[in-house]
Amino acid sequence: MLSFLKEKLRLLVITDKKLKPNIVKAVEDALRGGATSIQLRLKESSTKEMIEVGREIRRLTRNYEALYFVDDRLDVALATDADGVQLGPDDMPIAIARELAPNLIIGGSVYSLEEAVRAESEGADFLGAGSVFPSPTKIDARVIGLNGLREIVKKVKIPVVAIGGINASNAEAVLKTGVVGIAVISAVMGAEDVYRATLELRKIIDMALGHGEPP
Amino acid sequence: MLSFLKEKLRLLVITDKKLKPNIVKAVEDALRGGATSIQLRLKESSTKEMIEVGREIRRLTRNYEALYFVDDRLDVALATDADGVQLGPDDMPIAIARELAPNLIIGGSVYSLEEAVRAESEGADFLGAGSVFPSPTKIDARVIGLNGLREIVKKVKIPVVAIGGINASNAEAVLKTGVVGIAVISAVMGAEDVYRATLELRKIIDMALGHGEPP
Repeated sequence: MLSFLKEKLRLLVITDKKLKPNIVKAVEDALRGGATSIQLRLKESSTKEMIEVGREIRRLTRNYEALYFVDDRLDVALATDADGVQLGPDDMPIAIARELAPNLIIGGSVYSLEEAVRAESEGADFLGAGSVFPSPTKIDARVIGLNGLREIVKKVKIPVVAIGGINASNAEAVLKTGVVGIAVISAVMGAEDVYRATLELRKIIDMALGHGEPP
Repeated sequence: MLSFLKEKLRLLVITDKKLKPNIVKAVEDALRGGATSIQLRLKESSTKEMIEVGREIRRLTRNYEALYFVDDRLDVALATDADGVQLGPDDMPIAIARELAPNLIIGGSVYSLEEAVRAESEGADFLGAGSVFPSPTKIDARVIGLNGLREIVKKVKIPVVAIGGINASNAEAVLKTGVVGIAVISAVMGAEDVYRATLELRKIIDMALGHGEPP
């Protein structure tokens, strides 16, 4: 299970309605390009819309054998049969989510070593740690840098995915810190050609991490 | 169960952070004044804050033997052990919520006869129907009037709670339509003295509906 999860966390692509209003089309392009996981992040929409979009992402990720996560919203994750939920410091506490949904993969979003250790102890299955670099989509996020990322990877036992300002030009350096993969918004959703941007990133990742175990 | 639910739906008070930023204090004042149900409605807050406030409301409603509902958010309802969830046309479909949380009481928010019939058929336990009058807190809501409300009450078999612009001066007329109770935001949360405003409404309700079955 753990090595399966690690493989599927190589390239986690997060939706962004402002950058790509047609979320479902952008997700399909990212999956064609090699995204191994998709995270639905849709902060200012109605629950109904989240569920409608989430169902489409569920269908697509099944077709591409990718994992499907929902940011923040356990209700949307459960309603759309997601593989997991991503929970940050302002979301539902991880321990409660674990109790309510024992079968979901829980990713903890952490912005410091302290938060990383806490998320692991509360039962997170993996961490999204950042921001590695200043990020164009999360201007107010704390920046931990490559050193901060390395410390987290060293300290926790669960897989760590790097997030925040990662793109084709810095991905290799990020992957050398020991993370199992990278999560991106702008690098893919801000690209004119989502498919090509994902393909390029996936190549860099596979070069850096090796081609992984056969499926 | 049904007559218990009907009794507890006499006076449903909905939170409003803009009108009363100290939600927990306002809820306690409303409960002291005789609110039989509280609905947590907290649209622009983090999930973490919703859960923190929800836990306090859970504790208070237990003390006052009132029901505790959450607007829209099934995840917050589950995380705070709410009695139920209130779902409108932009929220999670009632049938999905019923499947995910078979033990929750589900209230459907409906704004027309058509929506009322659909919510009943999808499995709602009761309806919040409105807006009866133009409402100061929901300016864009559709107004169904006393006649629209009467039609809904006649058509569905589940209990109906009236909502929208209801206050001490029009509550009696509303209660004559056959609803089991009223739901209010401004009439209570917009009052200087939440306790007195609730007390006054509760008196009007008990006069109109009788004193109900002994507990």
